[in-house]
Amino acid sequence: MTASSAGSVRRGRPGYDRADVIRVGVELFNQQGYDATSVSDLTSRLGVTKSALYHHVDSKQQILEIALEDALGGLEQAMDAAQRQPTAAERLRSIIRGAVHVLTQRQPQVTLLLRLRGNSDIELAALERRRRFDHMVTALVREAQSEGLVRADLDAGVATRLIFGMINSVVEWYRVDGPVDPTLLGEEILAVALDGLRPR
Amino acid sequence: MTASSAGSVRRGRPGYDRADVIRVGVELFNQQGYDATSVSDLTSRLGVTKSALYHHVDSKQQILEIALEDALGGLEQAMDAAQRQPTAAERLRSIIRGAVHVLTQRQPQVTLLLRLRGNSDIELAALERRRRFDHMVTALVREAQSEGLVRADLDAGVATRLIFGMINSVVEWYRVDGPVDPTLLGEEILAVALDGLRPR
Repeated sequence: MTASSAGSVRRGRPGYDRADVIRVGVELFNQQGYDATSVSDLTSRLGVTKSALYHHVDSKQQILEIALEDALGGLEQAMDAAQRQPTAAERLRSIIRGAVHVLTQRQPQVTLLLRLRGNSDIELAALERRRRFDHMVTALVREAQSEGLVRADLDAGVATRLIFGMINSVVEWYRVDGPVDPTLLGEEILAVALDGLRPR
Repeated sequence: MTASSAGSVRRGRPGYDRADVIRVGVELFNQQGYDATSVSDLTSRLGVTKSALYHHVDSKQQILEIALEDALGGLEQAMDAAQRQPTAAERLRSIIRGAVHVLTQRQPQVTLLLRLRGNSDIELAALERRRRFDHMVTALVREAQSEGLVRADLDAGVATRLIFGMINSVVEWYRVDGPVDPTLLGEEILAVALDGLRPR
């Protein structure tokens, strides 16, 4: 589920539903930063009154929470799916493909996640969930090292960071309406990462 | 030259020179965002008056300009050095090593560059310089494809973005006082990128 499918019942001002409010909020946060975005910025971008905005969401903060849940929930689901694979090689392949899928499908929400600075409890909690996810990926890389799929002479943490450096860069340049097919992109990143990390 | 070596003559309030003001300014911009950082934030972090701050720099904007010049100037110098290499393979190796070096040596300034959103003329000009640099790297990747060093079946722009995805991730996790040696890290990224992109 993406933010744009998060609400389907249209209420309040005609033309805007809750999902639109969240989508526009995330756009603004990504353009000018969460801290620098005021509720007035949100209402003027949407062309609605504050009371119309508060009909859809409790606060600016709630928009942040929903978007971060979209991003982190997607990555955690991809990890659950990877964990169900029978071998370390398949688990690592599954999480790389799955993460690229989440990043291309929920690009604005993941962009927000990747730019968090930890300036509030919500941000700190999200960064902690992201750290847990990173540690699980590092564990998969370590398993893949012991199975001989990934070079064992490279620190598993550094290898994970290089793989996710490639994957996370996708949010900076991928365009939904661009020429790059998201599934093929996942296969390319998988190939470059595994060829690059293969034992010599 | 890093921001912390940008000025050596100590003037104004004892204990702070111009380089310190710039260093602290960049730290604050990276923590809370440039737009969200006020001159009062700067003076209270430094513990100086506004007039003491303005003794060192003309404006908050000047701190941004100096930091971006540090980052972009470093990358452009690395590109000049790469261009002087005799073969496409050596030029590509040189720019990968050189960029990792700049990122580890000028991490706060490059972090600022990578998080720019283009909210002012200065930011737009810096993003344009970054784009020119990216295009020059893509040209080096294309040359390396025609020499058979890099897979020709992958778009040169996508290959460049994946390489720089790995390189740029360094600003997120590298620690000057951490266990990872910056020169070795450059060699590892070079190896992973070139093995990963080698023709099959």
